[in-house]
Amino acid sequence: MCGIVGVSNFDRAAETAYLGLYALQHRGQEATGIAAVDGGRATLHKAHGLVMDGFDEESLSQLDGRVAIGHTRYSTAGGKGLENAQPIMVRYHQGDLVLVHNGNLTNAQTVREELVREGALFQSSVDSEVIVHLIARSRMSTPDEQIHDALSQLVGAFCVIISVGDTLYGARDPWGFRPLVLGRKGDGYVFASETCALDLIGAELLEEVSPGEIIKIENGRLTSLPRLAPAGEVAPCIFELVYFARPDSKVWGVSVDRARRAFGRQLARENPVQADCVFSVPDSSNSAALGYAEESGIPYELGLIRNHYVGRTFIHPTQAGRDFRVRIKYNAVREVIDGQRVVVVDDSLVRGTTSRGLIALIREAGAREVHFRVASPPVVSPCYYGIDMPTREELIGAQKSVEEIRAHLNVDSLGYLSRDGMTDAVREYGPFCDACFGGHYAAPLVDLERHLPVSSHC
Amino acid sequence: MCGIVGVSNFDRAAETAYLGLYALQHRGQEATGIAAVDGGRATLHKAHGLVMDGFDEESLSQLDGRVAIGHTRYSTAGGKGLENAQPIMVRYHQGDLVLVHNGNLTNAQTVREELVREGALFQSSVDSEVIVHLIARSRMSTPDEQIHDALSQLVGAFCVIISVGDTLYGARDPWGFRPLVLGRKGDGYVFASETCALDLIGAELLEEVSPGEIIKIENGRLTSLPRLAPAGEVAPCIFELVYFARPDSKVWGVSVDRARRAFGRQLARENPVQADCVFSVPDSSNSAALGYAEESGIPYELGLIRNHYVGRTFIHPTQAGRDFRVRIKYNAVREVIDGQRVVVVDDSLVRGTTSRGLIALIREAGAREVHFRVASPPVVSPCYYGIDMPTREELIGAQKSVEEIRAHLNVDSLGYLSRDGMTDAVREYGPFCDACFGGHYAAPLVDLERHLPVSSHC
Amino acid sequence: MCGIVGVSNFDRAAETAYLGLYALQHRGQEATGIAAVDGGRATLHKAHGLVMDGFDEESLSQLDGRVAIGHTRYSTAGGKGLENAQPIMVRYHQGDLVLVHNGNLTNAQTVREELVREGALFQSSVDSEVIVHLIARSRMSTPDEQIHDALSQLVGAFCVIISVGDTLYGARDPWGFRPLVLGRKGDGYVFASETCALDLIGAELLEEVSPGEIIKIENGRLTSLPRLAPAGEVAPCIFELVYFARPDSKVWGVSVDRARRAFGRQLARENPVQADCVFSVPDSSNSAALGYAEESGIPYELGLIRNHYVGRTFIHPTQAGRDFRVRIKYNAVREVIDGQRVVVVDDSLVRGTTSRGLIALIREAGAREVHFRVASPPVVSPCYYGIDMPTREELIGAQKSVEEIRAHLNVDSLGYLSRDGMTDAVREYGPFCDACFGGHYAAPLVDLERHLPVSSHC
Amino acid sequence: MCGIVGVSNFDRAAETAYLGLYALQHRGQEATGIAAVDGGRATLHKAHGLVMDGFDEESLSQLDGRVAIGHTRYSTAGGKGLENAQPIMVRYHQGDLVLVHNGNLTNAQTVREELVREGALFQSSVDSEVIVHLIARSRMSTPDEQIHDALSQLVGAFCVIISVGDTLYGARDPWGFRPLVLGRKGDGYVFASETCALDLIGAELLEEVSPGEIIKIENGRLTSLPRLAPAGEVAPCIFELVYFARPDSKVWGVSVDRARRAFGRQLARENPVQADCVFSVPDSSNSAALGYAEESGIPYELGLIRNHYVGRTFIHPTQAGRDFRVRIKYNAVREVIDGQRVVVVDDSLVRGTTSRGLIALIREAGAREVHFRVASPPVVSPCYYGIDMPTREELIGAQKSVEEIRAHLNVDSLGYLSRDGMTDAVREYGPFCDACFGGHYAAPLVDLERHLPVSSHC
Repeated sequence: MCGIVGVSNFDRAAETAYLGLYALQHRGQEATGIAAVDGGRATLHKAHGLVMDGFDEESLSQLDGRVAIGHTRYSTAGGKGLENAQPIMVRYHQGDLVLVHNGNLTNAQTVREELVREGALFQSSVDSEVIVHLIARSRMSTPDEQIHDALSQLVGAFCVIISVGDTLYGARDPWGFRPLVLGRKGDGYVFASETCALDLIGAELLEEVSPGEIIKIENGRLTSLPRLAPAGEVAPCIFELVYFARPDSKVWGVSVDRARRAFGRQLARENPVQADCVFSVPDSSNSAALGYAEESGIPYELGLIRNHYVGRTFIHPTQAGRDFRVRIKYNAVREVIDGQRVVVVDDSLVRGTTSRGLIALIREAGAREVHFRVASPPVVSPCYYGIDMPTREELIGAQKSVEEIRAHLNVDSLGYLSRDGMTDAVREYGPFCDACFGGHYAAPLVDLERHLPVSSHC
Repeated sequence: MCGIVGVSNFDRAAETAYLGLYALQHRGQEATGIAAVDGGRATLHKAHGLVMDGFDEESLSQLDGRVAIGHTRYSTAGGKGLENAQPIMVRYHQGDLVLVHNGNLTNAQTVREELVREGALFQSSVDSEVIVHLIARSRMSTPDEQIHDALSQLVGAFCVIISVGDTLYGARDPWGFRPLVLGRKGDGYVFASETCALDLIGAELLEEVSPGEIIKIENGRLTSLPRLAPAGEVAPCIFELVYFARPDSKVWGVSVDRARRAFGRQLARENPVQADCVFSVPDSSNSAALGYAEESGIPYELGLIRNHYVGRTFIHPTQAGRDFRVRIKYNAVREVIDGQRVVVVDDSLVRGTTSRGLIALIREAGAREVHFRVASPPVVSPCYYGIDMPTREELIGAQKSVEEIRAHLNVDSLGYLSRDGMTDAVREYGPFCDACFGGHYAAPLVDLERHLPVSSHC
Repeated sequence: MCGIVGVSNFDRAAETAYLGLYALQHRGQEATGIAAVDGGRATLHKAHGLVMDGFDEESLSQLDGRVAIGHTRYSTAGGKGLENAQPIMVRYHQGDLVLVHNGNLTNAQTVREELVREGALFQSSVDSEVIVHLIARSRMSTPDEQIHDALSQLVGAFCVIISVGDTLYGARDPWGFRPLVLGRKGDGYVFASETCALDLIGAELLEEVSPGEIIKIENGRLTSLPRLAPAGEVAPCIFELVYFARPDSKVWGVSVDRARRAFGRQLARENPVQADCVFSVPDSSNSAALGYAEESGIPYELGLIRNHYVGRTFIHPTQAGRDFRVRIKYNAVREVIDGQRVVVVDDSLVRGTTSRGLIALIREAGAREVHFRVASPPVVSPCYYGIDMPTREELIGAQKSVEEIRAHLNVDSLGYLSRDGMTDAVREYGPFCDACFGGHYAAPLVDLERHLPVSSHC
Repeated sequence: MCGIVGVSNFDRAAETAYLGLYALQHRGQEATGIAAVDGGRATLHKAHGLVMDGFDEESLSQLDGRVAIGHTRYSTAGGKGLENAQPIMVRYHQGDLVLVHNGNLTNAQTVREELVREGALFQSSVDSEVIVHLIARSRMSTPDEQIHDALSQLVGAFCVIISVGDTLYGARDPWGFRPLVLGRKGDGYVFASETCALDLIGAELLEEVSPGEIIKIENGRLTSLPRLAPAGEVAPCIFELVYFARPDSKVWGVSVDRARRAFGRQLARENPVQADCVFSVPDSSNSAALGYAEESGIPYELGLIRNHYVGRTFIHPTQAGRDFRVRIKYNAVREVIDGQRVVVVDDSLVRGTTSRGLIALIREAGAREVHFRVASPPVVSPCYYGIDMPTREELIGAQKSVEEIRAHLNVDSLGYLSRDGMTDAVREYGPFCDACFGGHYAAPLVDLERHLPVSSHC
């Protein structure tokens, strides 16, 4: 997963893009970059790690211009070198081109093979690089047409923000897998992955870019290019609501907090239990746990405390002891838990490793009964559209039955939200892609079917 | 404020001390250090910044020995040079001596003047350095007596952990201002500022070191030195419960979470209001807000989201806009707030700057009414015992009436917890020092009365 | 200017390449990089600054394989970002391709324009990137032919080392502007800019790659590709002998030390003077000064001492005083100079700034007469083939007469080596390019004549 | 060994001290520090490594005041922590005291034992810290008397620069082991280890501080304190002339370059040989080799080239090969050496490791005969006065006969300069300490005789 932002018609646009990335930091912590465009010339700064560590006054001050594009990168797939970080900046026949991309293409290798055969040179291993080559090699005559032509050849998930000279474009794939919103502040326009970036910039939300839409901003004027050909279905990612997006964002037209509350309430209806208190695994399941408490009438408590200073640690595993990774991040509040029947609500269950460690912690703090509730269905299939998930072998939901998982976690009861329950809770904002929960894959898995390596940069 | 830890009888003791500091990071982020003792010889590593940044495998691996002492420093007072970071390590006639100190002495300058007159050399500007000089110059014949003699001459707040050769000591001032607990893991012993450090180390709590107590650990054996002469009163800091300690710690015999819950409930009783929801300023007032909701029956919500990736930012203030510091750290959830009458609960009100910014954010998100509730009384006096507070001129509670503060914050109503309400809520664990809330100063302010500069390292 | 190295058939080839770069550090200090190839897959590490600062055990250990290519970069032209550092690594239809380049192309912009028109994407601003595009787009069917085809389209100076999969190529332009040697150590082969790199690696010199030659090393076997079409003339750079190469290297078949000695002797013959001692500007003119002393019979002295710890300095110019940059690097030995008639020999005179400062130093040390001798002719024209020189406006030899320069430097006499004298001294190893001394430009200045920006990366 | 500098009555004195350290960098590369005094208050900055790396604009700008003291540290003895770097800065009853020290005390442990017994606290392991304690504990009433009192109790080598408040002192031990000069620039005064620091600062040399002299500078006025009681003999270190000092400095009243030239000439007289050329091991023996060539009439050549970019290297020893440490630093010029009978002149022979590697290099370059000449006598005894030398077991001159050393080095002949020859060559500037060459130890070895650890910080 990644976070992207693009701004146009701002003084010192790079600083506005920087603010946007600051708000999108949760979407990727591995690398970051901003390119700014001044009089058609782009300059770029990329760095490993967090936005706040990757930029300083000097590096920001060198990014002149009224247009800027930023990226924050999640995945370590494709190599950790900065050549795999974004924005991608190239010079082509229409001038300087900058691109950022959130999502994963499912035909990247297939397209790349063809491009390489024609003499294209690839300098990174990320799927996004095929997009700039397709633009540069398009036989169309204007940047507008070249971009449309290139995006039309892509399959899979892509939100892209592109600049050609001082013109800014924002586009979303026809399936609409990943989010992209458009905002305005004064005469300036902002594209961003989530509305929380607009909030920090101080921009108002104009609209969510719709599936297949390509928006162009030039000289402070907003126009639309012809839409991309519609996909057979529209499939925005429901996992953004379940886990990925920030709760203060609005995604797919719904408040993320409200969606999670609804998941929590429905979870309580589907999996009731007699217990003394409900608590969350902070902070990602706070909303869902509150929903569970609300619906069930069981008191909401703060049973787990999260240490916000967690980073690298340099301790021998033997010194650190079992479940060390979990313990350094969370601590249980004995006074809340001791002697109680507790309901623990988590947002999702992927590998189960952290949950198992948490439950050990909770048991040590004296819980009489532990009832684990998951505010989404079992994750049973990998995501090929941009969510970084382990292989099917590591997905506990794909390998074990619910009863086996319950025993593995060592809980008294385990309850998942059903697929229908999840979907119904947010039905008015759908339909959604729920491929990871066992739904179908809306966009063809072109590379996978040809047994090519699957892209997963972002 | 600072966090301190000392461990004895552990393999690679420095790693255990490191874990302890990791859990105490919230008590100080400016500098950190660990000294380890091996066969009577101490080695030391200090660094600026967080524990996780200040140590790596190499620096930890060089700290050999079964005894280790660590410190994490809060304040910038006294200069930022590493000579002002702790542990203090010196060689004196009984061997290598290492000391860490949490709290502020109120007679440090007075003692220092006398020591300097006698030829003592000071290499730092922190008050703690007087303690090691007093030990070294004591006319007593054994380390036990020298330490007792030195500590007897101190006035004010001090929890200290000291090693002389391989012997470890932990002591608390006769007023008991600051917390210090003793835990055990196998054959090893642990002193730490808070129980959350014991939890991460995996040690069980044996006791809170009592006011005036000096505990000695040698060759795995625990003994007590003669107590320090009792102070006129015992005065543990109530602000540790209000704000400073971690909610998963047990301080003064009470769960911090439970104490804050009680403050929140009492706050609701004293300051009721008709409203649609209650929410906290995460994370420090989560417990109090939940207590308020519980008592008032008003639904608990998550109205503010905290960005956990906040650090340095490099933006021109004009670009960033008003209340930028607040906005980069918090965002309001419009869907929770819009059109609602909201109760915002904060743990305390010191300068009022952040609160004012937060309320602007909340109003922009559409709140119909904002009722601000503070789960402690107005802060009206500086702390001379180790809590880093601004001068009286900057304390909004000392400068304005409650009505003036209400107008300044731009809220519909403002309610504080009363001093009696606060004290009553935790009466069974008291008495307490509440000097900052207008109580009296239990230990004499020796330097202040002599118009000497006041120490405030920690 | 830059230094390049390529090795094949070595265990941990990257370490051998690293040694080679270490010896070539004088050819470029701005950035460095090494790529290694293992089973056809290339990995790359680049860094700013010196070789010893840019690599550590970890970065070297990740460069697996028996083939490696390294580069050390001189110029700041083209932007300081690492995207402009080398090696260039790309994936093309024949596999991973790595390239390093020393020299400047004179038709890079012209070729680039054409490539961009065809849809090629450029990710850097260095001229070398056109070479990889030409290879990738060649219609030839094998890497051998593609490389030959690409190099045939280049005009100007290029020594390149290229790998395609595990096959290594070394080539030199038909004019032979820049040096490239081939060495052998056991079963391994080494290409390097200078023989001093072979010495440190412990390899023996097999041959200097000849102008237009393309050598291929595959599976420990050495073959030659068809030569590039011969240029009208052969023109190895004489400035390598004058200044750039290390004195312990053999370049153009001659020992650099011996060549400089011969320049010094001829300089003495052409510019005799009555004086008490001769000394050099250490270390670049040591050999020439010794030649001057030898021929003239005037005693050789050590009149200037060079401080080898010079780096960044942080002093206000007003504090530092006039000629500070010179003084921090050199000091005069008063006891050698005071009251004497001194001959100062320098290797070349470009801007004259340093020389002027040095002469002020020498005068302050009490010199009675200062006779300045330059062991090369006046530099009057820019180099377009890879030596980083200032513009004609800054070349003192292009702007002032010898008498004006003498007055400007404040010396009693000034003598240059004549162009004929210089050429005659090394006639048996020639002919040479002496364009910077007012000779003609052997390779057409294609971009310059079309008023395109001139490449000068290296 | 170390370099020290102190300046008084300069605007932004720290910058002038920084320049002085820059010129004294050869005396110590491990750590550096500057303290500046403004209105009696001292501020300090210390750092690991070189002067140019340890200071930047920000750190220099924070060192306000018209008095500054700097230090550059050589030795790794006493631990690498910054607490062992200098200047030492303490607060004592007369105000802020700063001290730097070059040389080694021979009674430091003895004095320290006594001080510790009285309650003094030591925060470092360097011998210099005893000096500040002696000053602080002196029963005298003024800083002048306290400093005199303290220095009178020291045995061994010490040049110290001290500030008490804004008053600056410079002093040299009664034996005069180590150098210290006094210079003037305008109204400002400068103490420095060597005259090359005065040159870079632009100060003129006033005098060498004489043995036992204590000079005081206050308000731009220069006075002398009563001298320290004279030692039985005066014994300036001859090894400063042989190796340590910079050739452009004047030490013990003689130009270092001239002294080394005289050593080289005498070496030729004592050890003549038939040969084709003479060359030095650059740069430390350049002067001596030139002296040898001059006297013998054998031509001076540049047979070895030194790589000035040498630093850390990250190569497996097996990859690097035998003598790697030597090869990375030096290369032989085959064209000078091949087939020749060469004389190699080195300044001194300590362990013999580097020399042996160099000779292997020279033989590989084709030398027909190698004659090794050392411009000083065999080093047979450790230095206890500040030169960092290995133990007697590692001193090749103490372990082997000259013939055994010749065979070990694999040279055709080996010749040392005789002790008398060395002394005679600089007789007019003596007498000298030549303890390391088998002379006697002028100052009593107090700690050594009591079997205490010997200080060797500097």
